[in-house]
Amino acid sequence: MNKIEHIGIAVKDMEQSKALYALLLGTEPYKQEVVESENVLTTFFKTGESKIELLSATNQNSVIAKFIEKRGEGIHHIAFDTKDIYSEIKRLEASGFQMIHPEPKPGADNKLIAFLHPKSTCGVLVELCMDMG
Amino acid sequence: MNKIEHIGIAVKDMEQSKALYALLLGTEPYKQEVVESENVLTTFFKTGESKIELLSATNQNSVIAKFIEKRGEGIHHIAFDTKDIYSEIKRLEASGFQMIHPEPKPGADNKLIAFLHPKSTCGVLVELCMDMG
Repeated sequence: MNKIEHIGIAVKDMEQSKALYALLLGTEPYKQEVVESENVLTTFFKTGESKIELLSATNQNSVIAKFIEKRGEGIHHIAFDTKDIYSEIKRLEASGFQMIHPEPKPGADNKLIAFLHPKSTCGVLVELCMDMG
Repeated sequence: MNKIEHIGIAVKDMEQSKALYALLLGTEPYKQEVVESENVLTTFFKTGESKIELLSATNQNSVIAKFIEKRGEGIHHIAFDTKDIYSEIKRLEASGFQMIHPEPKPGADNKLIAFLHPKSTCGVLVELCMDMG
């Protein structure tokens, strides 16, 4: 793992939360993107070498809608940048970690991503990601 | 806010979780420290310019014991590094954010810290911190 690539935060109202996090972080978001396959709208802020990613549901089938229904708004996942996501998945599986996605898939922000199961990481939803370049 | 200083993760069993996160992050922890005033044991890992801070309760009065009882293990807070925590608190209060600690107090890792109320930040417990040098 090279660094924290981003922290994903589940929010109900993107417009309100976007304004709030711009104030909190003292910086405007640099990107907004819909990930159709996940039914989420994402908004990205830079903070140092990492990002804050706000996530809102675009419909009720979204994992974000289900997360907020169950837990309320809050931190959804931590994503770590990896140099080679394929070898990192192999290394983690060999170490006994359980992958939700044993094969990486395209995610927001031009990345390949794969999630680990929170049961193997003390309740934390961990995402691996790698720039598609 | 300069960068993500650390992410705090509440865990039940520090020895087990420490070994797990060393495997996950591919690096050994660089520091372990008890914060008596908070009844917590902390273990720190470096990842890029940020840190992962595992937190376990040293007794049942700890906020970490209460957090785990209510929500289970998982991400407890995000801490942002600030150049001047005093002016940052003033700026945030003037912007309508609610501080749990309007005055900073000593925290782990030789820092002054202050928490914002999660009600003002979409359910996220946000910590400000500043190196005491």
